[in-house]
Parts: sequence; C-alpha cells; structure tokens
Amino acid sequence: MKSRGRVTLQTIAREVGLSKYAVSRSLSGKSGVSEETRERIRETALRLGYSKPASQTTPGDIAVVFHDIDPVNSELHMQIQNGVQAEAHRLGMALRMLWTHSQGQLEELARTCAGLLLVGPHDREAIRAATTTGTPIIRFGWVDPLEDADQVSGTDHESGQAVIQYLVDLGHRSIAYVHGTPGYRGRRERFYGAREIAERHPDVTLHVLQFEEENGFAETYRALKEEGARPTAFFCAHDGLALTVVSELLGQGYRIPDDVSVVGFGDFSPAKQISPALTTVRMEGQECGAVGLRLLLERIENPRQPGTPARRVQVASRIIERRSTGPCKDPAHPNDRAAPRQEPRIVSV
Amino acid sequence: MKSRGRVTLQTIAREVGLSKYAVSRSLSGKSGVSEETRERIRETALRLGYSKPASQTTPGDIAVVFHDIDPVNSELHMQIQNGVQAEAHRLGMALRMLWTHSQGQLEELARTCAGLLLVGPHDREAIRAATTTGTPIIRFGWVDPLEDADQVSGTDHESGQAVIQYLVDLGHRSIAYVHGTPGYRGRRERFYGAREIAERHPDVTLHVLQFEEENGFAETYRALKEEGARPTAFFCAHDGLALTVVSELLGQGYRIPDDVSVVGFGDFSPAKQISPALTTVRMEGQECGAVGLRLLLERIENPRQPGTPARRVQVASRIIERRSTGPCKDPAHPNDRAAPRQEPRIVSV
Repeated sequence: MKSRGRVTLQTIAREVGLSKYAVSRSLSGKSGVSEETRERIRETALRLGYSKPASQTTPGDIAVVFHDIDPVNSELHMQIQNGVQAEAHRLGMALRMLWTHSQGQLEELARTCAGLLLVGPHDREAIRAATTTGTPIIRFGWVDPLEDADQVSGTDHESGQAVIQYLVDLGHRSIAYVHGTPGYRGRRERFYGAREIAERHPDVTLHVLQFEEENGFAETYRALKEEGARPTAFFCAHDGLALTVVSELLGQGYRIPDDVSVVGFGDFSPAKQISPALTTVRMEGQECGAVGLRLLLERIENPRQPGTPARRVQVASRIIERRSTGPCKDPAHPNDRAAPRQEPRIVSV
Repeated sequence: MKSRGRVTLQTIAREVGLSKYAVSRSLSGKSGVSEETRERIRETALRLGYSKPASQTTPGDIAVVFHDIDPVNSELHMQIQNGVQAEAHRLGMALRMLWTHSQGQLEELARTCAGLLLVGPHDREAIRAATTTGTPIIRFGWVDPLEDADQVSGTDHESGQAVIQYLVDLGHRSIAYVHGTPGYRGRRERFYGAREIAERHPDVTLHVLQFEEENGFAETYRALKEEGARPTAFFCAHDGLALTVVSELLGQGYRIPDDVSVVGFGDFSPAKQISPALTTVRMEGQECGAVGLRLLLERIENPRQPGTPARRVQVASRIIERRSTGPCKDPAHPNDRAAPRQEPRIVSV
C-alpha cells in the first residue's frame, strides 16, 4: 500500500529521466548501467530521501559460498572473498557470504538467489543439486574435463611450466618436484606442467618427492639421494611444503641458494617471513574473486541458452623472485645445456 | 563549427535525459549502457535524424587481425570471425578485419586502434611490437607459460582428457593417439591431457603415432603392430587426420566401429561428410570470438593497471558422439577395468 508522498523507484525514474527498470537495477547493484548513470541515480535517491522497502525475500541476491573446512587454502579463500567484496562494493551490490558444505543449504540458496559463487571443493552431489535449479553458478573449485560448468581459477598448469623453465634458465638440470601428501588436484596440475617442460630438455631430470607431510621430508629425501640423485633445485607444490624443505635443508647444513634453490607456490604470508625469503608463484586470488563476480553478473543478465558452451576463466599467476633461488653452482651441473648428464633420466613417482 | 539546427550528441543527450558521454558510448557501441537505454538512444538518434560526423581517423576502432597463411585452422578462424562479427553487430559496432602477418602493419594498427583481436600464430616480434604501444590486445593464438597477455582459447587439454575417459568408459584399453606431423601446439596440449587420464588407469596403454602426413598413416601403423600393439581405438589430434585414419583402416578391411573406434578433433565440416560420421570434439569458435570481443571491450573501458594479472578465457568444447565409436569388442580387451593386461604398458613417442 503506497502512502502519498512516499518516494518510490518510479519517483526517482521520473526525476532522472530513466525507466523504473533501470533505476531498480542500478539501486540493487546490477550491472548494465553505466557508472555515471549509477552515480546520478544514487545521488537522486539520496536527495529525495528514498529508502528501500522493508526487507523481504530478495531473489536478486548473490551468495558467495565457501566450503567450511579447507584449512590448506584459507589464505587463498580470503583473497577471493576480498576480491568479490571489493568488486561488489564498486558496483554498489550487497552479497550474502557463508561457509557450508551442506547439500540442503546449497540447494536452498540456489533456489532463493539470483546466482551463486561456489568457492572450494564442495562435493559433487551438493553441486549437482544446486545446478539443477537452473540458477547461474560460478565455480572456483575443480571441474571435470569438459564439464558443463563455468569456472574461475588460477593458472596451475602454466605455473608448473614456468617454474621449471625458470630453474632450467638458472642452469639447474636435476630438479625435485616436492609433491608432499598426494591427492591435491592443484599440486597434480602443477606437476603435469612441470613435467612437460622437463621433457623438452633431454638433459633435465625431474624427480618427484611424494610423502605424508606429518612425517617430514628428510626420509624421502634420503631415499632419493641413495638412488644417486643430487637435485640442485626444489620446486615445492605449496608454500607450506617449501617451509618444511627450507628449514630441513638448512638444518642439514645446506646453504640456500648457494647449494640448492627452493621455489614455493602461492605467495602466502610465510613466504616473506622465512629466511631466505621465498621465490614463489603468486596466485591472484583477489582478481579471481572480482572476475568471478563479473562472470556471474553476465550469466544472470544473459542467461546461457541450451547448447551455449561453458567458460573457464583463468587469472594468470606470476613468479615472484626472492632470495631462495640462484644460479646452479654444482660443478657436476654446469650452466650449459649442451653438456650431457651422467645421471639416468628417471622420474621417481 | 556548429551549424544551427544540426543534431549533435548533445541534442540527443538532452532529449533522452542522459549525459552526452553516455550517448556517445552507446552510439559507438561501447558497453556500460543497458540494452534498454541503448535501444532508446538508437531510436531517438534515428527519429531526430542524427548522422555521425564525417569520417576521420577513428581511434575508437577495433581491428580483428588474422594470420594470412594458416590453412590448417581456416574453418576455426571463420567461426571466430563470425562470432566476433555477430557480437559486434549486436552491440552496433564497426570492426576492421584484415589478414596479415606483417610486423609493421600490426604495429601501425595498434597505434591507430582502440584495441586488437589477434587470431592465429603471429610471430613473437610482431606481437611484441604491437604490445609495446599499450593498446589492449586479446590473443587467440598460443601464449607462453604465465605470459603477461590476455588470451581466449578452446579447452585443448581438457578435451584430451575427456576423449580418453570416454574411450575408457567404452571399454577400450589399448588406445592410439594419432599425432600426425609433430609441431602443432594444440595437438601437443591434447596429447598431454590424454596421457594424464591414461596414466590414471593402470590397465590402459596409450600409443602415439607420429608421422609426416603426406606419407600417410599405414607405415607407422604397421610398425606399431609389429611391436605387438593392437589398438582398438584411435584418438586423432585433428579431424583431418581422422579422415586419413578412417579411410586407410576401411581400406585395410577394418569395420568401424565394430573392430576399431575413431575419434577426431574440431568438428569441422568433413566430420559429417565421411562415413561413418565421425565422433569428434566441437571447438566453439564462434563463442570464442564473441567472448574475445567482450574481453577486449572490458580492457578498453577499464585499462589494466600495472601489476594487474592477465587473463586466460577458455570456451569449453564438447564431445559430439556420432557413429565412428562404439564399445570395445576385442575379446582380449573386455570391458572390465579389473582385468589385467598382458601387453606391456608402453608409450611409443
């Protein structure tokens, strides 16, 4: 029931000379309105003393849902969250943020929201239940090969390639990929990229150190050395593993980077805290969040027609060079690609 | 010099109650204006008899540049071109299309245009020269690992994974990857994806058939059989290779798909012309084109700040199942993942 004199969307629309639809979209933070128009509408609404109708179900909401138990990726998830929030703020939008892996809750959200951003490894069944509602969903977790789902991620595969190329360019020819506990998808993707570059250099050997992390790295490393391997560089699949490797190697008397180089992955806060500061790969979590929100808005405004392909958007990572890496100084591994290697080219997986 | 009565952007802006800036953006096909507003401005401009100022250098132009000699990808490039054009039409934009691999021409274009879409394998130097102008560029060709460049592509790696999974699910355990002439980047990416899935199945063998295409497939295939291999499925890195494989196998008396299955890649027109019609992977070139144009517009409107990461956008492909594939009927390779294989698990590269 409208009271006389009450400022409605229609009042604002008349004042600014735009449709009620455009004003509504603008005030609810939807895109499709230019920044300038949005600003003009915001000012007019403020000047006229417009207040939103009492809260009710708002089917225009966007929800950002994090898996509630994923300590390994907590810093990355914070970056994503910050990125989504900053972009939403820029667009004047409100978001619902929550942490859950409950299938029922996810499905309920998909029914009541305009779109979902799913961060982290929610289980297949929960995702399927949410997807069947038809509500646009952007995934930040892994998708199956050619799965019909929109996904935003980092460049894991390329990062693996780029790090090995970086180490090869520094003269390293015996490199260990420190995998740690098996089973993490991102670590596997980085390994695949690393292997592809190693294979292109006949004089490069890529060893794989796979182990349960609670037991530490020393035993696996000793076993590798007993096979005659002498890696001069370690590419660790995660900064957390690099902390273990750096500290254990220092404890064994190695100098970093004089004797061995170490590269991490993630550029999380400990990378700058450990000494020597860690050369690592920066995942651009914040940009991933912003890009994910924009893709979701595009899908809400132009709903995917049947048969339209899904999209993968990757935000390019970057190698951050710090003090834990340097040229290979091992006389057995001169910085000379032509020099043939004695060590057999094996990959111990 | 303004003549009295002449309809300018300002006239239209006053009429529709929007800023001159918004009207200009809308009429020049820029985004940031809602579809509704755009339509209203277009109608008003038409009604008032607005005509664009006489043509001069239009630094707002967007150019789509194709490499002028790439016969292998001609059909894909046509799809991309159609996609860019359809999206430009939807937005009311004009495009410059041209075919060149001249470095000077590319650099000149980058200096005079608002943005470039580069389709195909332009050489590094030409791309570098264009990039240093600072004009936004979206690449459809390959980029180096973590290269600081925005790129739109298909899902080559995932496609390789998905095809092998598809064949494994059909019961095939001895699969040949038909690489053809070495050196094409996309074929290598698809192979890497294929290998990753094959490795996860200890009972699956992935053979690689690499050969100069002008010499045909028969000799390489004979060599493989002499090693004792009996592939029941062929994943061809390109539809063109699949035409060779299908016809040579038929000529040798094999029945497709009763004796062997064949999968292509690309879903180009011959895929439906050959008999049996080819199961293949459809690259969504048209959507790639549309997505590339939209990303370019985003970069023109919100220029990348120093340090902002580059983006990779991939448009998901799809397996198109036709009549060239079927369940594995070779009694030596039952549709039973638990059954151990006799044949040694080798990859002949």
